Amino acid sequence: MLRKIYDEALEKPKAYEWLEYLSNNIGGRLSGSPEAAAAVEWSRQVMDTLGFDTVYLQEVMVPHWIRGKKEEGKIMHANHFGSIDVPILALGGSVATPSSGLSAEVVEVKDFDELKALGNAVAGKIVFFNRPFDRKLVNMFAAYSGAVNQRSQGAIEAAKLGAVGVVVRSMNPFDDDHPHTGGVRYDDDAEKIPAVAISTNGANRLSALLADHSDLRFFMKVNAKQLEDKLSYNVIGEIKGSSHADEIIVVGGHLDSWDIGDGAHDDGAGCMQAIEALHIFKKLDIQPKRTLRAVMYMNEENGLRGGREYAAQAKENNEQHIAAIESDAGGFTPRGFSIDGTSAQLKSIQNWKSLFEPYGVHQIEAGGGGADIGPLKDGKVALIGLRPDSQRYFYIHHAETDTFEQVNQRELALCTAAMTSLIYLIDTHGVSDATEE
Amino acid sequence: MLRKIYDEALEKPKAYEWLEYLSNNIGGRLSGSPEAAAAVEWSRQVMDTLGFDTVYLQEVMVPHWIRGKKEEGKIMHANHFGSIDVPILALGGSVATPSSGLSAEVVEVKDFDELKALGNAVAGKIVFFNRPFDRKLVNMFAAYSGAVNQRSQGAIEAAKLGAVGVVVRSMNPFDDDHPHTGGVRYDDDAEKIPAVAISTNGANRLSALLADHSDLRFFMKVNAKQLEDKLSYNVIGEIKGSSHADEIIVVGGHLDSWDIGDGAHDDGAGCMQAIEALHIFKKLDIQPKRTLRAVMYMNEENGLRGGREYAAQAKENNEQHIAAIESDAGGFTPRGFSIDGTSAQLKSIQNWKSLFEPYGVHQIEAGGGGADIGPLKDGKVALIGLRPDSQRYFYIHHAETDTFEQVNQRELALCTAAMTSLIYLIDTHGVSDATEE
Repeated sequence: MLRKIYDEALEKPKAYEWLEYLSNNIGGRLSGSPEAAAAVEWSRQVMDTLGFDTVYLQEVMVPHWIRGKKEEGKIMHANHFGSIDVPILALGGSVATPSSGLSAEVVEVKDFDELKALGNAVAGKIVFFNRPFDRKLVNMFAAYSGAVNQRSQGAIEAAKLGAVGVVVRSMNPFDDDHPHTGGVRYDDDAEKIPAVAISTNGANRLSALLADHSDLRFFMKVNAKQLEDKLSYNVIGEIKGSSHADEIIVVGGHLDSWDIGDGAHDDGAGCMQAIEALHIFKKLDIQPKRTLRAVMYMNEENGLRGGREYAAQAKENNEQHIAAIESDAGGFTPRGFSIDGTSAQLKSIQNWKSLFEPYGVHQIEAGGGGADIGPLKDGKVALIGLRPDSQRYFYIHHAETDTFEQVNQRELALCTAAMTSLIYLIDTHGVSDATEE
Repeated sequence: MLRKIYDEALEKPKAYEWLEYLSNNIGGRLSGSPEAAAAVEWSRQVMDTLGFDTVYLQEVMVPHWIRGKKEEGKIMHANHFGSIDVPILALGGSVATPSSGLSAEVVEVKDFDELKALGNAVAGKIVFFNRPFDRKLVNMFAAYSGAVNQRSQGAIEAAKLGAVGVVVRSMNPFDDDHPHTGGVRYDDDAEKIPAVAISTNGANRLSALLADHSDLRFFMKVNAKQLEDKLSYNVIGEIKGSSHADEIIVVGGHLDSWDIGDGAHDDGAGCMQAIEALHIFKKLDIQPKRTLRAVMYMNEENGLRGGREYAAQAKENNEQHIAAIESDAGGFTPRGFSIDGTSAQLKSIQNWKSLFEPYGVHQIEAGGGGADIGPLKDGKVALIGLRPDSQRYFYIHHAETDTFEQVNQRELALCTAAMTSLIYLIDTHGVSDATEE
């Protein structure tokens, strides 16, 4: 049956075609944007044509942040003569600078320890977080994890010491000119200060210039705004189970994306794969025993409201989820699955390893499932993340480079095939008991 | 030590930089061309700067085929009114058409059985070989193997039945507008007829039109020429072994490429990886026990003269090669090695599997080593091919799409690290005895 699923996914791939529309006709779709609303309605109607048992929307209130006019970033000589433009992007959620911009001296640090050691010396200045990815790591998600607190927490830590803004090296292992956005957090104990990402080449340049001119200044103009929360939706398609309809297997990705780029890999790919997984069950006329749900979660990027709402509704309705699968790591050649569940669940999925190896899927390991499915965690459901090859992902992640052209048709189809196969195996055999050994 | 090798390869990668020069400044370098000569001298001098014990050239006479003016291909209405331009490329080695071009009716076939069943009905016509890649296969090299005899043998089989030319569907699993060249063979029993590749979109179009208009004609103009053989070189760099200098481990790729595109993946990548493998031994100050040789073979694409000459010289000089490693499948994320050797050799390399798995290299299997190292086969040497992810390779293979932009820096570096690690393990532990069990 896995061979049939792979044949169907590889010979008559649909996700690629759908993804072309989503990326090129709808494009970037940040929560609350007209594009996000279009994506909701479009994906609902796509599923409506596929003969699923139900397709419906689940209401969720989402934050509504807008970037406004394009940001400006400049490295300025201390005497205010001469400046060098550098590519920056406001981090998602950033407050605006004054409309004339913000300029201040710059202090470069690699981590929070270094920042704290400087203490009030950063007051009135812009903190430049410049810790690069550890390129020695093979898994680029591990490298991302090692660097991303600068982006998510940097504004809080810097503001506590009186800094007036932060510039963060883009979360990108490659040296290039594309800044990468991503969420920044604020909290009530610290001033909200503007936070921007600078391209890796820009960061290298700023660092080199700082070494010679410790008194240089950085100029940034951010025009962002946080508007009122807005009504949006998770989009859900369902095939009812024949004998165990009350046991749910959910597969999905997040429909929202950042506003720059087209959100093709992050996470249009995961959404289209989820739709196609259920579509393949229909095309091959496989009647699942359990209920299968494809869910396009809203607002993973800057709030996770969709994932939380889905889990809250599941709880309220006493639904029993036996497995939740997420694809949110790009549509590259699938290398494995990571499992966040009981050790019995991990073992029962690892028992299928030899079925996947002929298809080049080798790594079935304990690890994170995915952000959107995280709120479902209850000690019973198996949370499972698709793990594609990670080498190219952070070149496109949250950047204008996340376009359809970066997606390879066969790699995407192999992802769909791997996910559909896993769903088939879980539906047929279950996934161990739902209690910790 | 593998960790050190990976650290060096990933943190201070050199192959990517060298490959940029080879691809963008020298470019496509078909045997006998001025570009091939430039690549020989450039790569010799690159190795000369790296502190190897010897760097030298090995003479080899190579065929000298030139494409001449750009080809023209047209699908023509039978009444000679109206035509549709389609992208074609002469296959490497093809004879020319008359200078005014060649036009004839077209017969489409999927394979040689279908061709032979038609018999003399193809006399005076152009045979259109249109068997696509089997996209159900995960390994795209297997799909290539299943289709490539149309390109390599098609002209012979068609000419035997009196055909006047062949048009071959490009060896490409994707539907696009880039024709892919590659070698065509002739033999003494059949007329030499012009042979061209048509893009996959062009092939689909021609096939669809033929279904409605069986009398349409195809027009092709090929301006190629076979000149006299020319002197060229294999380029060799060597680090002498400390205790087993007479045992040689050779690593390499082929320096020649097709004339279109830049030969970045095929096989600039393999050549630069081989140089960097030895360079890493120098940088980490590892003194090998055995002699290590990086060889850039000349003329893999249309003659294999370099590989043959290298093997002939090795035999003449009574050299003992214990392992020959080739990277000629693109510079994508490495997935494994395929071993053409004794079962004892296969087993001793498979014993290192657990050392490679943390780096994402899982597939160590029996299989082909590589074209250039094939002539070394003597029942004793272990022939080993690097096996990168195959999904993207045939998008660029032998086409104008084989450019530096298609190479990912980290994927290339991971290839180098995997190759260097294997060389290190073979140098340190040997690779079983050189006799069949």
